[in-house]
This record gives sequence, structure tokens and C-alpha cells, in this order.
Amino acid sequence: MEKKTLLTHCSDAPGLISKITNICYKHQLNIVHNSEFVDNTSGHFFMRTELEGYFNDQTFLADLDQALPQGAKRRLLGSRRKRIVILVTKEAHCLGDILMKTYDGSLDVEIAAVVGNYDKLQGLTERFDIPYHYVTHEDLSREEHEQKMMEVISQYEADYLVLAKYMRVLTPTFVEKYRHKIINIHHSFLPAFIGAKPYQQAYDRGVKIIGATAHFVTNDLDEGPIIKQDVIPVDHTFSAQDMAQAGRDVEKNVLSKALNKVLNDHVFVYGNKTVIL
Amino acid sequence: MEKKTLLTHCSDAPGLISKITNICYKHQLNIVHNSEFVDNTSGHFFMRTELEGYFNDQTFLADLDQALPQGAKRRLLGSRRKRIVILVTKEAHCLGDILMKTYDGSLDVEIAAVVGNYDKLQGLTERFDIPYHYVTHEDLSREEHEQKMMEVISQYEADYLVLAKYMRVLTPTFVEKYRHKIINIHHSFLPAFIGAKPYQQAYDRGVKIIGATAHFVTNDLDEGPIIKQDVIPVDHTFSAQDMAQAGRDVEKNVLSKALNKVLNDHVFVYGNKTVIL
Amino acid sequence: MEKKTLLTHCSDAPGLISKITNICYKHQLNIVHNSEFVDNTSGHFFMRTELEGYFNDQTFLADLDQALPQGAKRRLLGSRRKRIVILVTKEAHCLGDILMKTYDGSLDVEIAAVVGNYDKLQGLTERFDIPYHYVTHEDLSREEHEQKMMEVISQYEADYLVLAKYMRVLTPTFVEKYRHKIINIHHSFLPAFIGAKPYQQAYDRGVKIIGATAHFVTNDLDEGPIIKQDVIPVDHTFSAQDMAQAGRDVEKNVLSKALNKVLNDHVFVYGNKTVIL
Amino acid sequence: MEKKTLLTHCSDAPGLISKITNICYKHQLNIVHNSEFVDNTSGHFFMRTELEGYFNDQTFLADLDQALPQGAKRRLLGSRRKRIVILVTKEAHCLGDILMKTYDGSLDVEIAAVVGNYDKLQGLTERFDIPYHYVTHEDLSREEHEQKMMEVISQYEADYLVLAKYMRVLTPTFVEKYRHKIINIHHSFLPAFIGAKPYQQAYDRGVKIIGATAHFVTNDLDEGPIIKQDVIPVDHTFSAQDMAQAGRDVEKNVLSKALNKVLNDHVFVYGNKTVIL
Repeated sequence: MEKKTLLTHCSDAPGLISKITNICYKHQLNIVHNSEFVDNTSGHFFMRTELEGYFNDQTFLADLDQALPQGAKRRLLGSRRKRIVILVTKEAHCLGDILMKTYDGSLDVEIAAVVGNYDKLQGLTERFDIPYHYVTHEDLSREEHEQKMMEVISQYEADYLVLAKYMRVLTPTFVEKYRHKIINIHHSFLPAFIGAKPYQQAYDRGVKIIGATAHFVTNDLDEGPIIKQDVIPVDHTFSAQDMAQAGRDVEKNVLSKALNKVLNDHVFVYGNKTVIL
Repeated sequence: MEKKTLLTHCSDAPGLISKITNICYKHQLNIVHNSEFVDNTSGHFFMRTELEGYFNDQTFLADLDQALPQGAKRRLLGSRRKRIVILVTKEAHCLGDILMKTYDGSLDVEIAAVVGNYDKLQGLTERFDIPYHYVTHEDLSREEHEQKMMEVISQYEADYLVLAKYMRVLTPTFVEKYRHKIINIHHSFLPAFIGAKPYQQAYDRGVKIIGATAHFVTNDLDEGPIIKQDVIPVDHTFSAQDMAQAGRDVEKNVLSKALNKVLNDHVFVYGNKTVIL
Repeated sequence: MEKKTLLTHCSDAPGLISKITNICYKHQLNIVHNSEFVDNTSGHFFMRTELEGYFNDQTFLADLDQALPQGAKRRLLGSRRKRIVILVTKEAHCLGDILMKTYDGSLDVEIAAVVGNYDKLQGLTERFDIPYHYVTHEDLSREEHEQKMMEVISQYEADYLVLAKYMRVLTPTFVEKYRHKIINIHHSFLPAFIGAKPYQQAYDRGVKIIGATAHFVTNDLDEGPIIKQDVIPVDHTFSAQDMAQAGRDVEKNVLSKALNKVLNDHVFVYGNKTVIL
Repeated sequence: MEKKTLLTHCSDAPGLISKITNICYKHQLNIVHNSEFVDNTSGHFFMRTELEGYFNDQTFLADLDQALPQGAKRRLLGSRRKRIVILVTKEAHCLGDILMKTYDGSLDVEIAAVVGNYDKLQGLTERFDIPYHYVTHEDLSREEHEQKMMEVISQYEADYLVLAKYMRVLTPTFVEKYRHKIINIHHSFLPAFIGAKPYQQAYDRGVKIIGATAHFVTNDLDEGPIIKQDVIPVDHTFSAQDMAQAGRDVEKNVLSKALNKVLNDHVFVYGNKTVIL
């Protein structure tokens, strides 16, 4: 017996839940967990169904396609552990957190490789027996550097790229190549403090809360669909540096919670937003 | 066109979602929102379905009853605003919060009456044009007092009784009469600090967090099904009295969040627990 | 025996705590609570001292002035309950919360009057026996309207003006007249979603958290010193209207927490920030 | 120039802050940060003073001793990084978190060694080049096992022992030897769910929040002075095992926050409580 997850989304119409669950029932697939959502503004229907049974993917999907409205998207995902490549620069906390959570089993993922534009995190990565690729950007144009990165990354057939404090802006070419496959952690509560040095900006503004945002990367910097956000309180005693230090905890927690949702097929991207079922 | 909510729970079986949604579809009832849950420990299935359409309750329920397994419970609830009677003693904060939230529309309920064993909150209640009944317990046995309370309460055909810091223990007779209809706010994070003076207990123990618990009342004092809990941080600077003062905010917030869930038919009671869909 | 609070701030220098506490000791004033903070970026010292004893304000302050560096600011504040005037438009939740918390004793303040540019909240205000002034802005220029507002407000010798969802922009003249005396609740987590319709902006951006900000009003709209911020999680199921509804709870909680700090003399304004001791 | 921290506590008396800060001033020690607290219930005074300057410890402490009341306790602590020995059983998450936070600099501590009654965490520990001692309890009485543990531990002159999910009860002898030096993480929001299997207990009770408690170990199991507590929300969808999994995050966060306070000399133990300045 296998477990698979069916993700369906399409224009809303009467009887969709009934139609989809009927097909599952007909194929003797047991619904372990089911969630739906209708976005009333756009009239769009989303459904996530965890199934258990003996799957004939082809006939099951064919039945679905016949039942669903024109333009419906559906994916049937096996329970294979997802594979990620992590991109880093110099900061250890987000990488370290993913390594450790994978090690102790709280994050269910295969880390295929870590790629960094500095070699600073090579030692940490290799302690966990994971290949580290040092791809410097020095003396290279942005395009040349990304070309080298992509050569390394392409070996691994990753499901997702995770920017774990990777501090370089990506070109539209790169972003397009991994559309809705790149997850970034931004060190502010977006859309506050877009751009560089958000903790300095937060300090200058005298805010009483700082945060972090995990989002899919799109061409508009810091503007992609938000997956998860969280915050912590700060006060007048925090320097910009203290805020950055305190912020690290939020960053890694937000990133690993977002990964947990994405890697377990809970996240739909729709327009510039996410629906998380 | 009407809106109704269908609450179903029964032993889990294959195809339940499919069967129920088929019947909705057949009756041309549109599913506005649907949630299900299967408790794997007990093998029990719960489903809450918000429906929209022209209802023929009798034939719809008859169809359901035929489709559902033996022993299934289902309720079809109209969108009528619920009616509550509030029981109080002397403390104003929970009553005041419910009065104000009802006034400004954040809580969608009809407050039929307030009943108190002191007259202290009569003025506040009457400012909101709601009848207040002062039923003193002085010179009365517990049974006699409750008898008088029940006489007053019974005039109002309330859906729920809300104990908004009503500080008297209820007899099994009273509790049984309003089974799963009495909601209490307990001034601690249950099961910590059961019983009297929880803030003093919390102070003595030196806890760093205090909380409140909204629960249905059963015969076992402080042991009924929990609906909602929340906490706030405290520290060494808080006296027992400071904790009580700070706790008031949590108490009223927890109570009104619990009421919001109960009054909008989101809460199943099952065994000694709640399932909130 | 009296209780007073001493607020001191000045350029940092060696021995300041020692000098100030020596003077308290010399005047036989008992230090009930003391907090200090040095902002290392600006080299500025802040100290808040709760004192108990028999005060001779003049000689005590003269001693302090002699001991403190040039340009030091100090205020000795009696324990008199502060007086506020509340400005409102149409929304009841923040006003209602302040009225109720004042009624039940959780907020220690005298509400001298409520002034609204609509008459919608007159009934609610008068239920609490507080004068309501309806000062319409219709057919008036901004300046004329503010002139009328100020005439009403000036009767009350308020310590602070509280904008409890007062939805009109104030002129520099008005703001200057009540410098650091006007507290506003802004319905977003500033600096995100500055300006109008923040909940619609939050909805459009697909954020997973919404918030509110209490701040002193300065000429730069939404840019004054922040006193308190808080947030709540939202998700894809929230419409812009749901966010606004959920946001109301945060707004009133943030506003009343900010008031609590300001009214009990915990807040220093320094530059465009607050220091809260 | 050196940095040191002075921790003082004694019966409250007039002028204590003044006396202590005078002595600092006299010794030309600059007060970088200062906090005080008076516990009004017990009439006890606590003060933590971060100092900067050229220290003559002996004369400084002699001056203090002369100024402070009988029975006063004071410690002058250098800024040397603290040394800990970590005790573990089989669960990796708390150990892993401390290792990683020490590696990336968020926790400022020297991990002298890890001691486990199983060998399961030896690999993880040695990845970070830290000695691991496997001291099995098999075929040993509790006293014999602890004897062997103490032999290992005593090599390291640790400031604190950290029980990072060490699942064995300690004898009074062991506890007494490291009085107020042993920090434990308990997997519940104490005093709720004292004893074994707290997540199963939480599941059975149907709570809506679970938590963790870091505390000093005393002879009364789960009854020592609480340093830090935190919670996360759970709901009906959590099995006891899900609660345990979710709880791991709280456990490690609470433990590392508690360590951060203890290791930086912020924590006073007084009676069965902590004062954290």
C-alpha cells in the first residue's frame, strides 16, 4: 500500500469535492486527510488530499481530468523524500539549523549539496558528510557566476533550491529556470524594510518588533509569494547588531517551518500568494 | 437562499466525505466551506460543512441518515444568532468584554440576560440595556440557590450559559441539566493550578508564564473538555496580585475566542476533548 | 508619605546613577523601583526612579540640577491620575476598550471627554457618563475644523490626546500644539503599509501576519516615535475584511498597552524613538 | 580595561543603590548596565551591575562588604567564557542545538565534554570535535553509575552541568554536589504534567497548548527554581507523538534561552525561585 498526495486547483464549480472524492472512492483510495479552500475573490478552488491505497496513476488521473473543469491543475505526488540544494554565503545559522534538523529527523529532506560563494561554511557542511561546492563570484560577471552555479546545481536534480542567507541577487534567467522552486529567507518582516540592511533600518525606525519572511523567489526582489512569517519583540536596548543577532533565531525558525510546509506538499502558489493546506 | 452548517461525526469508514458531499450535491446545496478530521486513535470521523442553498431539511437529513454508518450523529444548524445567559459574581472584566464585543459587532451573539449572585455588575449590564437578575446565595443551600438560578435562566431559552467569572461550584444536577452547554473560564493554564487561588499558586511556584482556559463544564471541577487556552509571560517582578491583574486580559481574550468558536458551530465535544473544525 | 516618579535624561557621564541616588538618599526618599538605560550610539543616559517619602520638590530638584550635566532634562511627576481626551470617528472598538478598561480598573486614567467628527459613538460614550462632543468636519476647511476641535479640547486640560481610530490627518499646527502629547493607533505593523487601507494592502501582498502600531503623532504621517507594536497571524483564508476584523483586536490591545506605559510615566521620547523604562 | 559583573543580594535597606554605585564610582569603575529588583514580599534586594575599568577585586569587595548589610551575598564575575558539561541519553535535538549555537556563535560557552548513558550521540558530538564519554548504567546501581559519571565530569571543572534530555533521575548526593549548577529541560509546562510521559498526559487531557520548562535541579523532582518557560499551540489533530515532535522545538529553544541567561550571569536563585536581571 502506498501513500500519495493529490493537489488540485481550478475555477470553483458546484460539486468539486464530491466529484474528486468520488473518484478516490471508486479507485479504492482511502482519504487520510483532506483540506479545501475556495478563494472567493478570485473564485478559485484548491484541494489537498492525502491518499492511501494501491494506485494506478494513469487511470486515476484520467478519471480526474475528465471530471475537473477546463484548465484545472492537478498533481499526484509520491511520498518520496524531497531533494534540496542549499545556497549559502557566510552566515552559518540557517544552514546549521537545516543540517541539524535533517540529522535529528525533525526535517524530512535529503540535502543533496551545499553551494557557497565563499568557502566559509565548507567545514560545517562536511561535518555532516554533505558535498560542498565553493563557487566564488570573484572576477566573474553575475551571469558567468550563475552559469557556474547552475552547472553545479544541475548535477543534483533537486526539487527545490534553498537560499539559506545567500546574499546575492539572482538574475531573471536564473529565477525563471527554477520557477517556484527557489525558497528564500528574507531578514525582515516584508514588506517592511525591503532591500539591504533591514536590521539597521529597523533600528533607525525604532520598531518594537522585528521579523523574517520565507518566500518563493520571483524576479521582483523581495516580492515573491510569502510562505511563512514570524516576529520577535525588541526594545530600545537593542542595537542594530543585537537585532541582527536576535533576528537569526527567527530567520532559521521561519525558514525551517516554510520548508516543512513546502517539502510535504502543503503549498500552492497562486498569483503572487500562497495557499497552504 | 439560506446558509446552514452541517456537523457530522461517526465511526470512520471508507468514502464518508464522498457520500456526504454527494448528498449535498444532489440537493443542490453549495459547499461554502468544508473541514474534516479523523481521530486515528479512536477511529472517529468529524466533518463540518457550511452549506448554501434552498434546504429541505427533512429529505436532506433522511438521505444523510441512510448513507451514514450506525450511530452517526449529525446536526443541521441554521444561521440564527445564538442566545446566551451570562453568570457572574463580582469581577467586571469578562462580562464587560462580552458586552462590548457584542456592542461593537466583534461577537455575534444575543445576550439574553445576566445573572449574578451579587448586585455589583447590575449597573454595567444595564448600561447595555440587558436585564440583570440578582440572585443572592445568602441564607440558601447550594441546591436552593441553583433552583432560583434555574428559574431565572429557564425564561430565556438560552443556547449556552457562560460563566464569566462566576465563582461558585455548580452541582451535578445543574451541570447535567445543561450538558455541554456551560462554558467556563478558568484562571489558570489547566491542568496546572487546579482549584482555588491559581495566581497565588503560580506566584508561589515562580512560573514564568501564566494562562487561562475556557472549557465546557462537567461534574469534575476544572476537568471538562478544553476549548481554548492562552498564556502570557510573567517574571519575578510580578506579585500574585500583578499576576491576577495581568491574567484578566488573557481570561477575557480566551473566553471570547472560545465563545466565537462555539457560537459559530465549530466545536465538537467528543469524550473529554474538543475537536474544532 | 507620597509617591513620585523622577524621569531624568542627559548625556552619559561617569557616576550618574551614583549622583542621582545619593541625592534621593540625602532627601530620605526611598527608591521603590529604578531603571536606567544608556544608548551607546548617541551616548545618552535615561533613568526612571519611583520614589516614596516626604518631598520638598524645590530643594530636591535644585540639588539634582546642580549634580546633573548641562542640558539634562528631569521631571518629577506626582502620582495624580492622568487626564485624557479621546478623538474618534466611527469605529467603536478602541474607544469601547478604553471605556471598559477604565470602568473595570485595568486602565488607570480619567477620561475627560470624547470628541468625534461623527455622532455615531455618542451613545456608547454617554453610557459611561462621559461627555461627548460632536464636531462635524462637514462644510469646514481642515483648519476651521481643527479650530473647533481645539476649542472643545482646551476646556479639559488633558495630559494626552488619544486618537482612537480618529481617521483624519492633523495639520502641523495641531500637532505642534500638542507636541508628544498625541497618541495614535495605526492599523498596520509600521513601517509596512503606510497610508490608507493597510488591510487591503496586506491582503494584496499575501502577508501571513498583520499588526498594529501605537505611536506619538508628529508631522510626518505614520512616522512618529513608536511606543508599542503587536501582531497576529493570518492566512490565505482571510479576506481583506477578515483581516480588518481580526486586526481590531490587535489595535485595541496595542493602544491600551501603549497608554498604560505612557500614563504611568514609563516613556521617554528621544529623537524619533521611545525609550521605555 | 576589563569587564566584570557584580551580583549583589541582601535584605532591602534604604540607600543600597546609592551605596553600591558610590563604591563603583570611587573605584573608577564605569557602570555599563545596571538593574535592581526588590521583592516586596520577602523584603529582599537584588542588583546586577556590569562594570568596566581597572579592577582591584580585593579592595573593591572589601569596600562593598563594609557598606552592605549583614548577610549580604555578592559575587564579582569576570567575563571568562563559562564551561559546561552536557549530559544526554538518546535524543539529539537539545544537544544538537547547543552544539550548533556554540558553533555559530549564538551561544557563548565552552562545551568541555558530553557524557551519555548511551553511545547514540557520540557521532554527533565528535563531529564538533568535543569529547564524548559513554558511561552506561547497565548492570550498575544508581549510585555506582553516578559515581562513574562524577569521575568523568570532575575532570572538566565545569561551571554548569546541562541535562539535555538526560532521562535518568539524579540522587540527592549528586544534586547536592552540584547545587544550583545543574540545569534541566523538562518536557512540559511545569507544574502541569509532572513526571513521566508528559506529552501522553497532555494528549489525554486534550490541552490546546504544550510547553517546556528549564529549571535548576533540586532534590524534589521537577520542583526546582524555574528559569524559563515557553509554549506552542496544539490542537485536536496532534497525536501524543506529534506533540512530542512539536515539543522538541520548544524544549531546545527554552533550554538555550535559559542557558544564555545563566551563562551570562543574569540569574539569581532565591528560595525556590529565580530573579533574572
